[in-house]
Amino acid sequence: MSKRKLLVTGAAGRIGTAFIRAQRERFDLRLADIDISRLSDSTCEIVKLDVTDAASCLRACEGVDTVLHLAADASPHADFTTSLLPTNIIGTYNLFVAAKAQGCRRVVFASSAQAIEGHPLDVQVQEDMPTRPKNLYGVSKAFGEALAFFFAHESNLTTVAVRIANVAEFQAGERHSARDVAAFISERDVVHLLTRCVEADLSGYNVVHGVSDNRYKRLAIDQTRKILGYEPADDSFVILEGSVENAG
Amino acid sequence: MSKRKLLVTGAAGRIGTAFIRAQRERFDLRLADIDISRLSDSTCEIVKLDVTDAASCLRACEGVDTVLHLAADASPHADFTTSLLPTNIIGTYNLFVAAKAQGCRRVVFASSAQAIEGHPLDVQVQEDMPTRPKNLYGVSKAFGEALAFFFAHESNLTTVAVRIANVAEFQAGERHSARDVAAFISERDVVHLLTRCVEADLSGYNVVHGVSDNRYKRLAIDQTRKILGYEPADDSFVILEGSVENAG
Repeated sequence: MSKRKLLVTGAAGRIGTAFIRAQRERFDLRLADIDISRLSDSTCEIVKLDVTDAASCLRACEGVDTVLHLAADASPHADFTTSLLPTNIIGTYNLFVAAKAQGCRRVVFASSAQAIEGHPLDVQVQEDMPTRPKNLYGVSKAFGEALAFFFAHESNLTTVAVRIANVAEFQAGERHSARDVAAFISERDVVHLLTRCVEADLSGYNVVHGVSDNRYKRLAIDQTRKILGYEPADDSFVILEGSVENAG
Repeated sequence: MSKRKLLVTGAAGRIGTAFIRAQRERFDLRLADIDISRLSDSTCEIVKLDVTDAASCLRACEGVDTVLHLAADASPHADFTTSLLPTNIIGTYNLFVAAKAQGCRRVVFASSAQAIEGHPLDVQVQEDMPTRPKNLYGVSKAFGEALAFFFAHESNLTTVAVRIANVAEFQAGERHSARDVAAFISERDVVHLLTRCVEADLSGYNVVHGVSDNRYKRLAIDQTRKILGYEPADDSFVILEGSVENAG
């Protein structure tokens, strides 16, 4: 059986790099980034992609089964007019339009925990809760989630919005804020999660949460486990406390 | 006591026209529209406003207590790049930025039932349910709701997103789709609702629903009644059936 053809946008970023390193054999990868110099060591197909250019997005999606759309300005302090608007809003629109036009089957959209960060801190956010962004980056991700719903509704695209939280590598003994610990997701868990987003049997629009199996979770993953078969391996509390025994 | 100073954008549209006709004595109105020829009969202050121009938005908000932001391309078939992006997305961003910069106290943002229309038809949509837009116009309104949350969070602005449904005048005996009847709001009810959005004792971010007291409602108004004191006068089922007696 031939491998699934994936377009990964923002391939040179942190999540893209981890995903590609782990899954380069599993998928037939087309790597896209605005700065392809950072991808020069790769043996995968590489395309330079500025997502603000609709024609380039169309070319990048040609022959692709699934788009893993990671490209974004991910700064919580990003300027709206000069960055979030072109990259996250127009760029995401261009990618969905291109994926639909090229007959892709699925778009996995990297949303963010920032899209829901405005819910009170003592509320565990469920997958079906409304977006509540505390910054304009989160607003741009809320827009992307709405767009993902629309495209699943009006075309044959299956879409998955993944509210990825705090991708980090914690070491035993480190101190982090309660929020960052509750929102932690390890690199191996985010790779597994995104792989399930690509491969799980889904249709229509789906929204899932990206945190590890942390003892306390800012975002619930019950629905995510159920629809994706997501099985996170890590727990930030165990990692920080150095052992399961000390974590009680 | 001096009257509250209101900036009404999209003042020449259907909702603006009804609101101004009913409330011109109640408020100190500044009427803004991209086409002020349609406002020429008014005795209110009138400003020509293209919401895509940030500087014009800033001037329009000067000295204003509350912005009633109705200006939008409201077509469910509107083109994204040429219309929804500049008018509904950039324009709404410009208005919020201007309102904050000018120290306005409140922004009432005309969202739409189109922002939630993708929920299954047999589900009564609650105010705290997530946006689920079936068209790109609805996506642009979902963006506006997220923006309204953000601005309430990061500034002193009180914001109200009003999911206005099917503003219409029904006559007894007419036939309309089940959706249009369940989503009906009469002009007098929408005027009352928007007046409550301006005057009710609120803080932070609020999302409310704009339908009349229809026997069956596409959008629930329990929370809307509670936080605004919204008391709709009309019921589409009674209007269409010609009398209360026939409506049982």
